Amino acid sequence: MKQGGEDAAAPAGGPWEECFQAAVQLALRAGQIIRKALAEEKRVSTKTSAADLVTETDRLVEDLIISELRKRFPSHRFIAEEAAASGAKCVLTPSPTWIIDPIDGTCNFVHRFPTVAVSIGFAVRQELEFGVIHHCTEERLYTGRRGQGAFCNGQRLRVSGETELSRALVLTEIGPKRDPATLRLFLSNMERLLHGRAHGVRVIGSSTLALCHLASGAADAYYQFGLHCWDLAAATVIVREAGGIVMDTSGGPLDLMSCRVVAAGTREMAILIAQALQTINCGRDDEK
Amino acid sequence: MKQGGEDAAAPAGGPWEECFQAAVQLALRAGQIIRKALAEEKRVSTKTSAADLVTETDRLVEDLIISELRKRFPSHRFIAEEAAASGAKCVLTPSPTWIIDPIDGTCNFVHRFPTVAVSIGFAVRQELEFGVIHHCTEERLYTGRRGQGAFCNGQRLRVSGETELSRALVLTEIGPKRDPATLRLFLSNMERLLHGRAHGVRVIGSSTLALCHLASGAADAYYQFGLHCWDLAAATVIVREAGGIVMDTSGGPLDLMSCRVVAAGTREMAILIAQALQTINCGRDDEK
Repeated sequence: MKQGGEDAAAPAGGPWEECFQAAVQLALRAGQIIRKALAEEKRVSTKTSAADLVTETDRLVEDLIISELRKRFPSHRFIAEEAAASGAKCVLTPSPTWIIDPIDGTCNFVHRFPTVAVSIGFAVRQELEFGVIHHCTEERLYTGRRGQGAFCNGQRLRVSGETELSRALVLTEIGPKRDPATLRLFLSNMERLLHGRAHGVRVIGSSTLALCHLASGAADAYYQFGLHCWDLAAATVIVREAGGIVMDTSGGPLDLMSCRVVAAGTREMAILIAQALQTINCGRDDEK
Repeated sequence: MKQGGEDAAAPAGGPWEECFQAAVQLALRAGQIIRKALAEEKRVSTKTSAADLVTETDRLVEDLIISELRKRFPSHRFIAEEAAASGAKCVLTPSPTWIIDPIDGTCNFVHRFPTVAVSIGFAVRQELEFGVIHHCTEERLYTGRRGQGAFCNGQRLRVSGETELSRALVLTEIGPKRDPATLRLFLSNMERLLHGRAHGVRVIGSSTLALCHLASGAADAYYQFGLHCWDLAAATVIVREAGGIVMDTSGGPLDLMSCRVVAAGTREMAILIAQALQTINCGRDDEK
């Protein structure tokens, strides 16, 4: 897969060009590994619950991405899903920091449900610079660079301009927290949106790809409680560069470590969704 | 797209060969029209609610499929979504009958959410003979013929052998009926499955493609209230020919006109799901 055509319209270069190119190459390589693994047998070990599986491939892909990046950029820092599961702290310092989800949609991956992505975000001075997301099973490469637009396989992305809930396709995810109180709040939030006459609600099993659908205008809003900074980092740049809004569920500015998010094509829609939601407390990534 | 390779292993011919080949060709042609329309502007008229849209393309595709089939098979009967919406009766007689959904995932189509299919089923003496489903946005052609197996782009399909709910990926759809009582039952059913520790629940906006995922082993179960015979006819053959079970939500035999279904890779899983569900009464297709 190559980015071409319209991509040439995006100004190349910038201070993090080398990092961006490395992210693209590694996301494509990781996608190959994931596709190969999908063709093989299922072998999984449980992480914190049956709903949150970690696979050998998850670890393999994360190790590949981090080891390659560390070789090329030895002073950079890393926040990544598997490292965090092993106890590494998630703290975003001003240093150049890679924020990585080796397989977003792990449950999908385990079932070979074809909605699986690699997500690589990059922040400097606590500001997101670029995001690269590879939808491995459908061979789509999404990229966004601050001030330079968002693209999928070379096609410029543009969010929808929808402002009415009754015309909105809304995406969300259940998340791995499944205690009765959390489930009740999750379902109650879905009920509020459907009572509010949302046109449709979809649950596809990948936060990252849900946000890519939003960036491409195929959905009008997305919300979730219980996701992590590695689900959000790359996708946030892509949504914003496609003209969309990413904010906290309170309606305030996004806090990457807060484990919650509302995103939409328009500010009006994001606020409508935020106002409809009851908060589900899922802690913070930087306090775990 | 061509079916090749393993497809050659499926015995060709049979009494309905010409009908099957016509269905494949029309599903592919319909997919081209749908993909072209997706590249154009959104223009829709409402049907019964904001959640159940009908588009010009929906009508165009149905007219194309039926007019072509009527020319070739003038004695055959037709049951199809748009005709039913215009008041045509849905009655399955012993005559050869085509059961057609021109665009399954109409809400997805309107939003250009890339999960949209053409579904063409065929029944004789009230028994389903074959099904052809074209996932237009991802160019996958699913086919199933009674006694001859199920295939996707020439690859043989096989359901998962999962029997434990805690390891199951379960698919469902909300459906167009959105009164508070129906919504509450829909969400309560989802809660029962999640309390039952289902590994994951997905809502992708296309009953037909959900059933194709089940047939391919990428999901372990599917259930829905409020779907129609044209959502089910083709997919039922594909799931059964992939080794799966399609039954009524009561646990009894499938009734194509009953607007409800449970499907799974194994009988054990189908029964587990059926036992967990509360019934949502959505009427019958043959009494509307």
